[in-house]
Formats: sequence, structure tokens, C-alpha cells
Amino acid sequence: MKTIGQIGELDQQMMGKASERVDSLIKPLHSLGRLEELAIRLSGISGEIYPSFDQKAIIVMAADHGVYEEGYSCNPQEVTAFQTGLFSKGVTGINVLGEVAGANIIPVDIGIKSDLPRDVGIIIRKVKNGTDNMTKGPAMTRDEAMKALEVGIEVANQQISEGVNILGVGEMGIGNTVPSTAILSVLGNYNLNEITGRGAGLGQGGLNYKIAVIKKAIKINNPNRKDGIDVLAKVGGLEIAGMAGVMLAGAANRIPVIVDGYICTAAALIATTIEPKVKQFLIASHASAEPGGKYASDLLGVKPMLYLDMCLGEGSGAALAFPIIDAACAMMKNMASFAEVGMKI
Amino acid sequence: MKTIGQIGELDQQMMGKASERVDSLIKPLHSLGRLEELAIRLSGISGEIYPSFDQKAIIVMAADHGVYEEGYSCNPQEVTAFQTGLFSKGVTGINVLGEVAGANIIPVDIGIKSDLPRDVGIIIRKVKNGTDNMTKGPAMTRDEAMKALEVGIEVANQQISEGVNILGVGEMGIGNTVPSTAILSVLGNYNLNEITGRGAGLGQGGLNYKIAVIKKAIKINNPNRKDGIDVLAKVGGLEIAGMAGVMLAGAANRIPVIVDGYICTAAALIATTIEPKVKQFLIASHASAEPGGKYASDLLGVKPMLYLDMCLGEGSGAALAFPIIDAACAMMKNMASFAEVGMKI
Repeated sequence: MKTIGQIGELDQQMMGKASERVDSLIKPLHSLGRLEELAIRLSGISGEIYPSFDQKAIIVMAADHGVYEEGYSCNPQEVTAFQTGLFSKGVTGINVLGEVAGANIIPVDIGIKSDLPRDVGIIIRKVKNGTDNMTKGPAMTRDEAMKALEVGIEVANQQISEGVNILGVGEMGIGNTVPSTAILSVLGNYNLNEITGRGAGLGQGGLNYKIAVIKKAIKINNPNRKDGIDVLAKVGGLEIAGMAGVMLAGAANRIPVIVDGYICTAAALIATTIEPKVKQFLIASHASAEPGGKYASDLLGVKPMLYLDMCLGEGSGAALAFPIIDAACAMMKNMASFAEVGMKI
Repeated sequence: MKTIGQIGELDQQMMGKASERVDSLIKPLHSLGRLEELAIRLSGISGEIYPSFDQKAIIVMAADHGVYEEGYSCNPQEVTAFQTGLFSKGVTGINVLGEVAGANIIPVDIGIKSDLPRDVGIIIRKVKNGTDNMTKGPAMTRDEAMKALEVGIEVANQQISEGVNILGVGEMGIGNTVPSTAILSVLGNYNLNEITGRGAGLGQGGLNYKIAVIKKAIKINNPNRKDGIDVLAKVGGLEIAGMAGVMLAGAANRIPVIVDGYICTAAALIATTIEPKVKQFLIASHASAEPGGKYASDLLGVKPMLYLDMCLGEGSGAALAFPIIDAACAMMKNMASFAEVGMKI
């Protein structure tokens, strides 16, 4: 994948300049904390001292999961298709939160089980009609995983070619905490009892069963944790692959990518296993209410900014992080320096 | 103070309606977490199912502290006056962050030591030229504390009469972590060794000295922790009183008030000691990097939404919380319900 070869390092020289600028501003040193770190990294990503991320888009990858048939989820699988159709109508959570943030929502069918009508305003890039049941074999072939990564890359590249200069990532896929937790467990060697969540209201029996399903999937597939694409193919999902692809493309184009919650962080773990340099281009938004969320963020080595106990997905947390990005850029560009106001410290 | 008598309860009936509406929206139940709680409370505050907080202002109270002469601070006291002058020039942290959030910045000289020129665009409501040295007696008389509370109330009422429907609160006052920590220690009975911070870079010796200063102030004044105005007068500050007054006025007018960081949370503790009902109208924004910040939030019984390790003050964290308020309102108003999209769950 030539995109991976294009991912570079942060612009250290520009970050040095940005850091000097931040320290010159009329405030006690480091008093804007992580807003300062963010501003400096945004300069390292963009290569600009005063970057502006005014063309915002959130790519929402939607897909289904063969493992759903094991019966661990409380939600009907049809919700994936139904809700994805609604993304084009402007009435879902991510539409509404995206609008507040000034971000376009770009829904993509990368592998919904049923076929959506062509006219619903969704980008149709279906790799297959849902993954296979990972408790019986790999969720998808390595080739399919590569194709799904490419879909993410191509959709992101298209957005970037149209002028988008910051991306958020989100997903829709009933049952996708199972592949996400499988990925997290394999890559971080975590105990499933610690990291597996109750989803939309499982009791203890349901939770135990969900854990058993994930265990079986990992055991039968024996993914190689050093090989992100192997893990993705065997115990991942098409929307997870698509999100990882968006992250790779964002990094290759030196565009910041805002990571949403738990499922999205699992995708980030796949992307950084494929190419560790991608991490520098990722910005964590909110701390998911999913129990695995904290483990996923820790393993990725990121600290969320927002703590709102959300677990909607769709990119909802990413949307809420955009104004913080805008604030970091405004701080950098519009605050006066001590020298400018004639104050000596 | 008649304002205190005007503070009512949240509108429980409207909160019930808001809660029903939130649960009807097309998302898994409770999946927008604290954004949902926030939306429901905003309905309880405003009495409206679809409130909108489009007229935003952040009132920044500025004052000096007699206890500064004890020499615990690393910053020149003149910075209070200088920085407050800059608030009217649009170049400080709070100006820039307020602009991103669409909030007007209203700086108030409620007790700066020196006299600012009348033409700098600051509201001059000086109760006195800085407090007295609280290690030698009360920081101010009870009457002065009441006057400073009234200034906060009047400035807030003026904003509200001009159409402002949500308020943020911030402060500028060199050395004001000392009164804030004194307030926190008295009201929460905390050990000063746990809650006192190093400010702008104190070493261990400086920290020990700062703790000794606070201890002395508390010992000599012996404030009555059941009496918020007594604590405020004896070991508080004029800007702290002003902020508490803004909170009381916001609550009396059923306007949400966004609380900034450590100093502001100390003011909220004073306000809620004076009238516990005010708490329902306060919204915590960010978790301050000051060590006492967590203790202050816990004592107040609030959970911040943003974790950005900031400690600038000025209302900077409050500014960053405004878009989250907008998001909560947009969720409530613009998301479709299951019934509206014909989905049965």
C-alpha cells in the first residue's frame, strides 16, 4: 500500500517554532496545558505555524458482523442498515453534533449485510455483505481486509482532494464491540474479563456468553499480534478496517484525524500496528463509557480530552472535539505575545 | 439579599418531559451519557423543552489580594491590572477562546489595587483597592463582602437584562490560589498539605511557606464554615465574591452559569454555602491542573467535562464548555425520535 510509505514524521522544526510562540503568549507558562500541546502538534502535522482546520468532515463507516449470529447482542442487526440510511437525512446523533461543529458527515456502506437503495446519499463501497462469523473462521480474508483498508484510504483521499483539512472518524455496526474487544485483547494481551463490556444492557450471564464468544473467535483464528492486517482480517470488522484506512490516509496527507470512542480506538490500534508513525496524526477525543475504552486509549498511548460517559459511536465524540481544535488554533494565532503588549516577565 | 430568596428549584415537570424526549431519540438508551443529563438539566433550569443559549457572556472578575505581600507568589502583583486592561483589547486567552465560543467577555474591576484608566473598556465596580492581608486579620469586612457579592449580582443582572441567556465566570487576581485554598480547606476540612499547589512553579520550600501563610490566615480569622459570607470575608477575595454573586444572580434568573477552574469552584463553594439551591444552576467545565481542583469539584459535587490540564483562569475552561452546551441543546431539538423515523424498538 503506497499510502503507508507516504506517512512521515511530525515537522520537528515547525513544532519548535510553535512551541516558542506558545511560550511567548500572555499567560503563565504551560497554563493552557493540553491545549498548548495540541496546538504544537497541529503545527507539526500541518507544517504551519498558524494552521486552520475549517473544512471538517466526519467519515462514518458502516458494516455488519457475521459473529452477530452467535446472539450476544441486544439490538436487531437491521439497525445498522436503517440507521445508516438516516445519516443522509440529517436526523441522527452524529448529524446533529456534526452540524454544531461545522463538520460534514460522510456515511459509507463498507459492508452492511443488506443492500441499501442507491439513492439514499450514502457512499456505497461495500467490500462484502458483512463479515463472516469469526467464531468459525476468519471474519474476512486478508485480501478483503486490504480492500476495506483501501476503501477507507480512497474515501479519505476524495474528501481531502475536495478541500477537507481535518477528519473525524466514526462507525455504525451492530455487534461491533465484539470484534473491537477481540482486537484489544489480542494486541494488548488483556484479560477479556477486564475489558469486555455489557453493551446495551447485558446481564452477567449475557456478559459471560459474550466473553466466551470472543474467546472462541481468538482461539480458532490465532491472530498474529505483530501483524495488524492479520488481526484485522481474523477478528476485526469492515468498518474497523475502513476507519483504520482513513487514519492511514489522513497521516499520509498530513491531516489530523480525530478518533472517536472504543470501536474507533480499536481501529487506531490496528492502524498503528500497521504503521506506528500514524499515531502522531491521531487526536483522541472522548473517553468512552465502554469498559474497554480506557484500556484501548492506554494501549494506544493517548489521553482523551472529554469525559462525558458517551458510548454512541457514529463519530459523536469526535464531533465534540472539533471546537477544541479550533480553540487551540485560535490561541496560537490570535493571542498576543508578551513582547507585543510590552510586558516583560 | 433578595436575589437569594428568588433562587428556586429546577423545573421537575419539564425535566420529566425532557427526559422522555431524550429517551425517545434514535440512539441506544443513555448512550449520549452526560450530554443527556446536561440537556435534561438545561430544561430544568430554563423551563423549556428546547432551550437555546445563543447569547453568551463570560464575566471576568479582577481583584488583588493584601496577602500577596507575604511574598508567596512568583508573579508581580501589577499583572492583575495590566492583564485586566488587556481583556478589553481582545488579545488575551479568554478573549480568544471566548470568540471561538461566540461569547462576549465582560471584564470587571471589583478590587484591583491600582486604579485603571476609566477609558479602557472595563466595568469599574471597585469595592476596595485589593483586600487586606488575611494573615493579619480578615481580608475584608462582612459589609465589603456583601457589597462585592452585590456587584456580581448587579453585573450579571445587567447582562441578563441585555439578553444574555447563559453566563460563564472567570477571574484575574495574582495570588488568588491562597484565598481559594483557604476557602476550600475551611469548607471541606481538608489538610492543606494535600490541597495546596505550587502555583507558577514554586519549589518545596516555597510550597511549605505558602501552606504556612494559609494556615496562619485561617488560624487568626477562625472563619465559621457554616457561614459562607463569613468565610468569604475573612479568607476570601473580592473577585471570588463577585463570581459567587454572578452565580447567585444566574440561579435567581434561571440562567445556567458555567464554572471555570479552581478559583471559580472555590467561589461556587461560597455561593452554595450561602444558598445550596444555586448548585443546580451551575455547570462544571474543566478539571483544573491545580492540585486542589479535584478536591473542590468533589466537595461541590460536580464532575468536570473537559480534562485539559489547564490552570489559566480568566474563564478559559468555561469558554471551552459552551460548544458542549450547544451540542446538548442541538441533540434535544434536532435529533429524530424512533417514532418520527418509524423505527420500533
